[in-house]
Amino acid sequence: VTDTAVEADAEAEPLGRRERKKLETRRALAGAAVRLAAERGPDQVTIEEIADAVDVSVRTFFNYFSSKEEAIIGWDPEGLQAIVDRLVGRPADEAPFIAIRAVLSGLFEGVEEWADERALRHRLVREHPSLLPRFLAAHHDLERSLLRGMAARLGVEPDGSLYAAVVVTTSVNAMRLALTWWEAKDRAVSITDLLNEAFDALERGLVPPTRKAT
Amino acid sequence: VTDTAVEADAEAEPLGRRERKKLETRRALAGAAVRLAAERGPDQVTIEEIADAVDVSVRTFFNYFSSKEEAIIGWDPEGLQAIVDRLVGRPADEAPFIAIRAVLSGLFEGVEEWADERALRHRLVREHPSLLPRFLAAHHDLERSLLRGMAARLGVEPDGSLYAAVVVTTSVNAMRLALTWWEAKDRAVSITDLLNEAFDALERGLVPPTRKAT
Repeated sequence: VTDTAVEADAEAEPLGRRERKKLETRRALAGAAVRLAAERGPDQVTIEEIADAVDVSVRTFFNYFSSKEEAIIGWDPEGLQAIVDRLVGRPADEAPFIAIRAVLSGLFEGVEEWADERALRHRLVREHPSLLPRFLAAHHDLERSLLRGMAARLGVEPDGSLYAAVVVTTSVNAMRLALTWWEAKDRAVSITDLLNEAFDALERGLVPPTRKAT
Repeated sequence: VTDTAVEADAEAEPLGRRERKKLETRRALAGAAVRLAAERGPDQVTIEEIADAVDVSVRTFFNYFSSKEEAIIGWDPEGLQAIVDRLVGRPADEAPFIAIRAVLSGLFEGVEEWADERALRHRLVREHPSLLPRFLAAHHDLERSLLRGMAARLGVEPDGSLYAAVVVTTSVNAMRLALTWWEAKDRAVSITDLLNEAFDALERGLVPPTRKAT
């Protein structure tokens, strides 16, 4: 599974210059928003200051985010769509869980690039409940998007298959659990091992065959 | 599994009069809090009004809840402990998932008693983000408590087994998904069927054996 995830990543089309620039600006704004919010608390940061930190105008800020909270949470609709595209693009004969496992595992190829900012963001959300609605909305968006992708693979409506919903919710959940575990262990263990342990348990079933026999 | 869940419920010790009275008062306060909050919005309800609605003093209110938000969310530490006790009390040779599946399924024997209030509470949380922190804390408490119970069964530390965490998180998650699905279908389907469908998928593994062969 890990090998196919690597392949899927390598197959991702390179971005054009304009798209690359846009992505860089978005990431810079999100990074500045998180950093400033961590330094002073989200309430003490203005959109102007976030824009200033990246040397763009407030108007440009609003091309990317509709609020300060959105910039701090930093969710990227295009990045999300790219994840869904990968799910839809997995081989048609792959079982639903194998497909989503490959896509989610693929996100961890670049874990070093986003883990620190994610940890900072989670700390901010824990300490500042004003960020919670936006944070949960982002979580929900990920699951809904993946569910749409999964439903498309299966040829059903997004709310037409409880099985698809179980596969998506459970997989995303296992991924988050592995990440939480990894952070709780101060990243002294391999995130890939944790992911594989959690995904393997789901793949083979929560009742190991040896126990089923009893 | 459903049969054993019923047994577990029937085995629960009957409460003494004092405990029963306490539980009734708690439930009445929580019910009044949710009802009043739904009528006027949580910000327009005072603790005094909640206590008045149940004909107890504000002082009595604070014997049960430390804040208005807590009363609206209505989480019951003793009820939570009873759930954990049931998990710990399941037969020692039961596989972790079978044990937690039985305990969670058992909660649905009385689903008619709590489904309306739960739906009202969820609507309130969606509409009033000020309730979110308390709501998420209650969710988190359930998972942490079940994880403690599961760890006790397995003879490990609560943060000592990723497998135990996967089983607990995934099971609770599947239960919530079945409930969400049930509400989305206006309860026109059987919640027991939905629960069994979700739990069966987890039990046998997310990759059905027939697909594994390909």
